[in-house]
Amino acid sequence: MSDALTQRIKELEAELERLRSLLKEGRADDTEVMSSSSPQENSDCKPADGDTSTSRKERKKSGKQRPFDFAAHPRRHVALRLAYLGWAYQGFAVQDNTDNTVEARLFEALLKTRLIQDRQSSNYHRCGRTDKGVSAFSQVITIDLRSTQFGGGLGVIVPANVDVDIKSKSSASEVPYVKMLNRVLPQDICILDWAPVAEGFSARFDCQSRTYRYYFPRGSLDVELMADAAKRYEGTHDFRNLCKMDVGNGVLQFERTILSAAVKPVHPQPTSSTDQYDLYMFEIKGLAFLYHQVRCMMAVLLLIGQKLEAPEIINHLVDVANNPRKPQYSMAVDYPLVLHDCHFGDLSWQRDAEEVKHVLSSLQQHWTQSAIRAQVLQGMVQDLEKKGGVSSSHCCLVEGTKQRNYRPLLERPCCESLESRINHFVKRGRLEREEGENGGEVIHRGKKSKHCHISSSLPEAPGTPKQCTDHKVND
Amino acid sequence: MSDALTQRIKELEAELERLRSLLKEGRADDTEVMSSSSPQENSDCKPADGDTSTSRKERKKSGKQRPFDFAAHPRRHVALRLAYLGWAYQGFAVQDNTDNTVEARLFEALLKTRLIQDRQSSNYHRCGRTDKGVSAFSQVITIDLRSTQFGGGLGVIVPANVDVDIKSKSSASEVPYVKMLNRVLPQDICILDWAPVAEGFSARFDCQSRTYRYYFPRGSLDVELMADAAKRYEGTHDFRNLCKMDVGNGVLQFERTILSAAVKPVHPQPTSSTDQYDLYMFEIKGLAFLYHQVRCMMAVLLLIGQKLEAPEIINHLVDVANNPRKPQYSMAVDYPLVLHDCHFGDLSWQRDAEEVKHVLSSLQQHWTQSAIRAQVLQGMVQDLEKKGGVSSSHCCLVEGTKQRNYRPLLERPCCESLESRINHFVKRGRLEREEGENGGEVIHRGKKSKHCHISSSLPEAPGTPKQCTDHKVND
Repeated sequence: MSDALTQRIKELEAELERLRSLLKEGRADDTEVMSSSSPQENSDCKPADGDTSTSRKERKKSGKQRPFDFAAHPRRHVALRLAYLGWAYQGFAVQDNTDNTVEARLFEALLKTRLIQDRQSSNYHRCGRTDKGVSAFSQVITIDLRSTQFGGGLGVIVPANVDVDIKSKSSASEVPYVKMLNRVLPQDICILDWAPVAEGFSARFDCQSRTYRYYFPRGSLDVELMADAAKRYEGTHDFRNLCKMDVGNGVLQFERTILSAAVKPVHPQPTSSTDQYDLYMFEIKGLAFLYHQVRCMMAVLLLIGQKLEAPEIINHLVDVANNPRKPQYSMAVDYPLVLHDCHFGDLSWQRDAEEVKHVLSSLQQHWTQSAIRAQVLQGMVQDLEKKGGVSSSHCCLVEGTKQRNYRPLLERPCCESLESRINHFVKRGRLEREEGENGGEVIHRGKKSKHCHISSSLPEAPGTPKQCTDHKVND
Repeated sequence: MSDALTQRIKELEAELERLRSLLKEGRADDTEVMSSSSPQENSDCKPADGDTSTSRKERKKSGKQRPFDFAAHPRRHVALRLAYLGWAYQGFAVQDNTDNTVEARLFEALLKTRLIQDRQSSNYHRCGRTDKGVSAFSQVITIDLRSTQFGGGLGVIVPANVDVDIKSKSSASEVPYVKMLNRVLPQDICILDWAPVAEGFSARFDCQSRTYRYYFPRGSLDVELMADAAKRYEGTHDFRNLCKMDVGNGVLQFERTILSAAVKPVHPQPTSSTDQYDLYMFEIKGLAFLYHQVRCMMAVLLLIGQKLEAPEIINHLVDVANNPRKPQYSMAVDYPLVLHDCHFGDLSWQRDAEEVKHVLSSLQQHWTQSAIRAQVLQGMVQDLEKKGGVSSSHCCLVEGTKQRNYRPLLERPCCESLESRINHFVKRGRLEREEGENGGEVIHRGKKSKHCHISSSLPEAPGTPKQCTDHKVND
């Protein structure tokens, strides 16, 4: 046993030696760095005595234990912009009960390319979480990645003990983050570009606004009514009746600001078309969103489009003084939802034309398959209709089965009120009430809380919500 | 053991008795007939002595051995029209090495609903075979199904020993074939309608013509050139260079008649659009097709659309005197191909409006999912292009990877000639040559042939091809 250990130490030392000499020679070539797991491929490198093929296999198997001296490299705080198709995943964020998340694949790629040492030390923030089935065209994360910039730069932290020689010979170009990651990520997740950012910059807290899109076919919906209704979402409102309350996670305040909300055709319509196959989108831009907020808002719009509710229902739903409890209704399904954009201040997005072409090509192939399959189906549907088939007016974008007799929202049973939910968690010790200075009540983390460490007062106080850092802000 | 057998006999007898009394009372209600497997649910029926729940389970498990007296029922020769999405299946026809075929699902449904006793005795013919991944909107089969028409009718065979009373009380309406089958078929296979047909009518031999559609996006293709090219397929030609020759199965003659061939937009274009996302179709109608013929024809059209070949190449390819051997090229991929229609003479298709609505609703839901997914992708592609991404001109509808340097078809290596293939099978005894009456050669089934039992002369003789009944006529 001690023989094997001694052997291992020798291997590690030899590898360190090799890398240090590479750096000294100014050859911070990433190809060589990445292939350090197979020293014999590099003619400059002679394996340590007794370095058999077995020990090389051992090194390969041990994965993260492969010798790589992160401390000898600069690190740099960057923003990465991702696009992914959420249909095959259980959501963006890593979860306890499944490995099938976008983040899990992302971190596998970051570790495999040795751009980070481990997640915990990577200073990782994400702009938002998308739920199972939800896609993103602009999900932004910030993270510290390995860098070649010994000479420093925006967000670069150069290791303290670096040779003056190396500094002066530092490579002009940064590690090709986008290309490296896209080579190892699965087909349906890709990095679009990256941006250097200042050390304190956070994808989560520095995000200025987020835009979602929800796509749907016209079918037999009254899209003009829906467009009228959508506008009513704009402004600052209490959206507790248009989300899934997440009180247990410390979400206690439901005012959010919607900068714009519109229903419009995907392609500008040349004539006033009434084709049921025309595609529309609900596009909504806001500062921050509550859990399932967009899907709840969409569900109400679909009811309005089917003329089962009037556009005014939205005004009622945001009037929490008169409607403090959410009527029971199902939210819209997940697959048509896309986190389309996360807006930041002036970020200098570094785009590699070759990479974009590569991503574009991949997406186009995906699109071709989907569009053709949709057309095969559309051809069948249209021919059946010609033969006298009557189109169903059922909207299949809402979860659950269609009720025979429609029950207006305001006449339905309601969900628990916010106060009731708070009481529930206070009883369990997850939240605690205290008297605040001005006589109002303050709710904060209880002794038995899982995550919370920020308090929030209730029920007024518009303005920037103070939230637990772990709550799910997005859909 | 003999106790169990005796028990079984008692159960069978009791069941026969029950059904006979039902018939006598004129209650040929299919619901009751179908629920005869659970006699206790029918209050008229008392299980035989000792009929325990175990024996009922045994009866259920034994599947086809459930007692049902087919001989006591009329049978009727019918045509069934099917639609199916071929993407999840290994083709239409039953295969030795897989259960995952459309036909396998169809026969499971026919047996489960007890519309047939078994495949072998069902007098089954199919209009054509579609390959793995290929869909159909109008696949027609003919088959003998159980009937209620004791009074006779088109294609009805009434059992000889039927009671005069029953005949006079025979039910007015036929077994609801379409509804019954659709309830047990999987989501992506459905019966559209049925038609009574004369006893000798065959889906295969009485089919007058077949129409295929191949859908594709415009991309960067020159669709006008393709439209010009497609017309050149019309007429009667030797298509050996535009199919996969199936000599081993007795396909020895490659002349086929194409009634019409066109490339056109799926939706009539209001203005002269050049949108790369516009969908087009190659629609082709012919008497009969060779194996993979449409996909080979499409592959050549795609080369023409990419301006890699001129439309005249088609004239060269059907000129087998000057081009007796097929150049090597890959056929187009499978998923965009649909057997759109099988044309018969005057058939009286029986359509159930409720059923059509049901099928339509199901297809619309499918379409909604596909179309929205396509739109999510299209939204991403369009935004990337706006940001300067360059669209790939690679056509992903052809199998295999794109070659860097295009090699014109007529300069490529060729496949084996027809004569060479015949020699190959003659050597193996699967085909035999003989001298025909007029001095020409006659090729027919050899001693070691698997299927063939019809001969064909070579190489001339245009007109109706004599083919082995088992050859794959369609794509």
